[in-house]
Amino acid sequence: MEKKPLILITNDDGINAPGLRKLISVVKHLGEIIVIASEGTMSGMGHAVTIESPIRLKQLVDEPDYREYVSSGTPVDNVKLGKHKLTNRKPDVVLSGINHGSNASINIIYSGTMGAALEAAIDNVPAIGFSLLDYSHDAEFSHVDDTILSITKDVLANGLPDNVCLNVNIPKKSDKPIKGIKVCKQADARWVEEFEERKDPFGRTYYWLAGHFENGDARHGTDEKALADNYVSVVPSQTDFTSHNHVNNHKFNF
Amino acid sequence: MEKKPLILITNDDGINAPGLRKLISVVKHLGEIIVIASEGTMSGMGHAVTIESPIRLKQLVDEPDYREYVSSGTPVDNVKLGKHKLTNRKPDVVLSGINHGSNASINIIYSGTMGAALEAAIDNVPAIGFSLLDYSHDAEFSHVDDTILSITKDVLANGLPDNVCLNVNIPKKSDKPIKGIKVCKQADARWVEEFEERKDPFGRTYYWLAGHFENGDARHGTDEKALADNYVSVVPSQTDFTSHNHVNNHKFNF
Repeated sequence: MEKKPLILITNDDGINAPGLRKLISVVKHLGEIIVIASEGTMSGMGHAVTIESPIRLKQLVDEPDYREYVSSGTPVDNVKLGKHKLTNRKPDVVLSGINHGSNASINIIYSGTMGAALEAAIDNVPAIGFSLLDYSHDAEFSHVDDTILSITKDVLANGLPDNVCLNVNIPKKSDKPIKGIKVCKQADARWVEEFEERKDPFGRTYYWLAGHFENGDARHGTDEKALADNYVSVVPSQTDFTSHNHVNNHKFNF
Repeated sequence: MEKKPLILITNDDGINAPGLRKLISVVKHLGEIIVIASEGTMSGMGHAVTIESPIRLKQLVDEPDYREYVSSGTPVDNVKLGKHKLTNRKPDVVLSGINHGSNASINIIYSGTMGAALEAAIDNVPAIGFSLLDYSHDAEFSHVDDTILSITKDVLANGLPDNVCLNVNIPKKSDKPIKGIKVCKQADARWVEEFEERKDPFGRTYYWLAGHFENGDARHGTDEKALADNYVSVVPSQTDFTSHNHVNNHKFNF
């Protein structure tokens, strides 16, 4: 008998996040499932790994074809632990999310959700990061099932190119139906920071990182444009940071 | 009178790291200097930002054209704080390092040093991450001056392309002289993990992330090849993760 596909699931909002629970419920019937996530939130952890301290790992659920673990590590640690300590098989796919909040455009670089997906891509394990454009804990996830199943089934059947994972963002639930799925490029947008300066009870200053997102990228074919038009955006995202055009064509003077 | 160039310096090994002190000493005469670094090490922090807690900031030195700050934030936080709270001018260059250890190849994705440089590149501030292929605290830095001055002066004079920073790696000091500087692409190499499993005094299991680096990339023109041949490697590195080839040419079936 052929083995069921092995699906490794993680996120960056923690083991109890509604987005993770939704993702599990949608894909559970597709294969053998291993869930490994952090106790609390790891938002903004990007591709951080835990080097300076050891990592704790605790099994929460042990059922046929379904295991669940909580760790003290980051999303990237969790992918590493999942692949190396929790199974002898190479996962057929790593799913990360569903993140509460957008990981479109430059958000990919700060995202623990996408850190996990990129970590899998480094080892040529197909991976998909799912994010919903709603930051609230009580975000409405009722409209995401078809998107998640359709993309996950395609990746299970056909794999992904080497060192490439998918950054999938889903519009917030609204009265308007989602128009479809668009393969896009990452919009050239950024966060404009404003640090909030406060005083603690002892009169010492501290800062909160705050800011707002600004998209000045008017090109066609970006993820931000697709999402604004009520499409799901899919950006094939790679682990090669090289600006090949500048390796080959830029004149350096050192 | 023309203003001196504004040079923002950070690292991921902390405010007291010899690599940071060396970098400061080499470039101090080139302009107005602002140093902001973390109290302790932030190795492996990648592009992490501090969202869940506030950030502390303390000024250590306040001299004409030279200020130094220590923060509780990550390298990326420090670039954001430096740009937004410590000056009203846009820095002419952000320098990060000198890292104790390689950030060539896939190490860029885990690196706080390069996280800082990439953060500057998001805002089109020219940035250079410097790393030495020697992990030890007492690494020998006596052979790096010319490399750092030559690349920094070029970037101050000519800038860098939008959303591109430089990932500079310098061979470990040896009897053989460095042959020169090569502009390279990121080698397709990876860490092979082995988690060390231990028991704490209470009999509970914990894990240390360990592993070794494996480069199976035999192509010409990679950073690993240049370093093996005793050249300094420079990889122009970008903040766009899109795999454009796959946006345009890959057949998805969702």
